[in-house]
Amino acid sequence: MQKAVTLGLVVVLATAFATAAFAQVRPDRAIKYRQGIMQAQSWNLGILAAMVKGEQPYNKDKFLYHAIALEQVSRMAWEGYIPGSDQGAPNRAKPEIWKDAAKFQQARDAFESATPRLVAAARVGTLDAVKGPLNDVAKTCDGCHDDFRSK
Amino acid sequence: MQKAVTLGLVVVLATAFATAAFAQVRPDRAIKYRQGIMQAQSWNLGILAAMVKGEQPYNKDKFLYHAIALEQVSRMAWEGYIPGSDQGAPNRAKPEIWKDAAKFQQARDAFESATPRLVAAARVGTLDAVKGPLNDVAKTCDGCHDDFRSK
Repeated sequence: MQKAVTLGLVVVLATAFATAAFAQVRPDRAIKYRQGIMQAQSWNLGILAAMVKGEQPYNKDKFLYHAIALEQVSRMAWEGYIPGSDQGAPNRAKPEIWKDAAKFQQARDAFESATPRLVAAARVGTLDAVKGPLNDVAKTCDGCHDDFRSK
Repeated sequence: MQKAVTLGLVVVLATAFATAAFAQVRPDRAIKYRQGIMQAQSWNLGILAAMVKGEQPYNKDKFLYHAIALEQVSRMAWEGYIPGSDQGAPNRAKPEIWKDAAKFQQARDAFESATPRLVAAARVGTLDAVKGPLNDVAKTCDGCHDDFRSK
């Protein structure tokens, strides 16, 4: 219950604070922050994928650990997309992030709803249970990058 | 209860997987990962500090949101300190991280135990309650950087 309340709060606040409160932040700081979170997403996803592909032995506890970490960081990058932060430091964010905010929100929602499903599957503890949900997470990464990250 | 179990699991596994399982990871990836987490730590700490210093209005929900985010990322960087990753990409990690692992563990423990205290204080919801715990967190950052990060 406590966890559900906390998670709900985090989700609501992540949305509420994503734009308005960060107007005074320097774009380069926001860019480095969100790129840092992307590194963390990539790191955890890479380890999970290696286990599913058989490049690393599947270990249910290790899988769960990194699925939880991925879920946590899956909610963090968005606040770094402050208005004007398509420029200010080298980055690949497309202007469409701000021009088509509704579509970007959909891509965000897809990722943020896929990672808790991965955690739930990881709690089952079998390789079969996690394969589909991990693939679903990876598809939400690709979907967002296709539309909102330049080549 | 569920949260306590999860947190316990995360703490145990973060320790268990920090070294052995990542031997095959390229040092440059581990360096970029841990630097990304540091960016996330700095981002959240910066926002919290701005509220305590009066550079941003104190908002208890916003403070709690970033305290929780900081707590989550406070457990993540360590797995990036794989053996040999003092080199491989530009970074400021001192060899003492691996030479004096017990002391590095102490610095890690200090940080990881300070961030949950900050979250607890943030739940109280007053500026007075969070000032001390935020200062304690900042001291653990500085303490680790003094000993284990080169100038």
